[in-house]
Amino acid sequence: MFSGAQISLYPMADDFVGVILLALGALDPYRDRLRIETDDISTLLVGPPEVLFPAMRDLFVAAARSGEHVTFSAAISRGCPGEPDEAICNTSALADPLEPLAARQAAAHAAVASAAETGQAIAAQFSLYVMGTGQHMDEIYGCIDFLKGSCVFDRSKHFCSVLRGDAGPVFATLAEAFCRFGPPEGHVTIDLTVSANSPTAR
Amino acid sequence: MFSGAQISLYPMADDFVGVILLALGALDPYRDRLRIETDDISTLLVGPPEVLFPAMRDLFVAAARSGEHVTFSAAISRGCPGEPDEAICNTSALADPLEPLAARQAAAHAAVASAAETGQAIAAQFSLYVMGTGQHMDEIYGCIDFLKGSCVFDRSKHFCSVLRGDAGPVFATLAEAFCRFGPPEGHVTIDLTVSANSPTAR
Repeated sequence: MFSGAQISLYPMADDFVGVILLALGALDPYRDRLRIETDDISTLLVGPPEVLFPAMRDLFVAAARSGEHVTFSAAISRGCPGEPDEAICNTSALADPLEPLAARQAAAHAAVASAAETGQAIAAQFSLYVMGTGQHMDEIYGCIDFLKGSCVFDRSKHFCSVLRGDAGPVFATLAEAFCRFGPPEGHVTIDLTVSANSPTAR
Repeated sequence: MFSGAQISLYPMADDFVGVILLALGALDPYRDRLRIETDDISTLLVGPPEVLFPAMRDLFVAAARSGEHVTFSAAISRGCPGEPDEAICNTSALADPLEPLAARQAAAHAAVASAAETGQAIAAQFSLYVMGTGQHMDEIYGCIDFLKGSCVFDRSKHFCSVLRGDAGPVFATLAEAFCRFGPPEGHVTIDLTVSANSPTAR
């Protein structure tokens, strides 16, 4: 299995480089469990979901604490048929596909309920894509049902769902959406946008 | 059919609001052919691909001309089974699925070759997702073949492809990738990141 994300951090400030450099320290506790490569467009994180989502959360929270309006964009992927198997991606976080949707939704809710708060309020907007199956919408609707029951669900929009709340349960909800829906050997992706300190009224 | 995009423009500058407001004028020529709704995370554009891609190009180019480091993020979608049919999305831009891949690739190259230049250099990174079919990778590999032959192809990265060059042929290449691959009645999405004026060396 291969899993990871192409991520970008966007501070809306003249000193965007300073904000990014300061936030990067938040990745230090994860560096031995991730492969990290940076270029001018994005940073690649390769690793399992249980490392990936906490690392993205801590990076974004560190940037948001600058007080600047910051956003974060990620293309998160697992099981892409074009990618190699990589040992660093070994994971036990993916749900058993034989488990009924209702049981997977209950486990997802329990995981979100136990997520620690960070003290940082954020908004997140994302689309879940499940590929290589004729029934991809069953899994997506199952995930949307879970989201609507989540304490951080805000609303559905065209093409995506919006979460709002503390970064802890928001990123936990994203991780559960990614891991509990779509087969473990399947090709599942998330297109994610996260925002904090926006001056725009909701 | 329903098609459109959730888009966000990110100027890395203290005056990010000013840059965004100035760039928004570039959407004026398209407003009668798009439905547009804005909130604090993104702006929804609903309309056919032949309007959507030029509108996104002109918006981004206008922002890039500020000289600031600006990026643009879009979740572009057509044929999502959960969305309603909408007359404003009627299009003749989608390829005939009975046409062989080679013919569709040739038509895509011709369209890119005829794209007008804008004078603005950009980089674009994107993933194409084709859902609801067991053979989704055939269409994705067919698209990647087209991309590799495009004058603006830069390189493949994990999960995505990178284009570099003038915004005219780059956005034309994105539109061709979106319209010529995956069935016209299918669920096809693009996760797109565009960047200009980055201070990071490549």
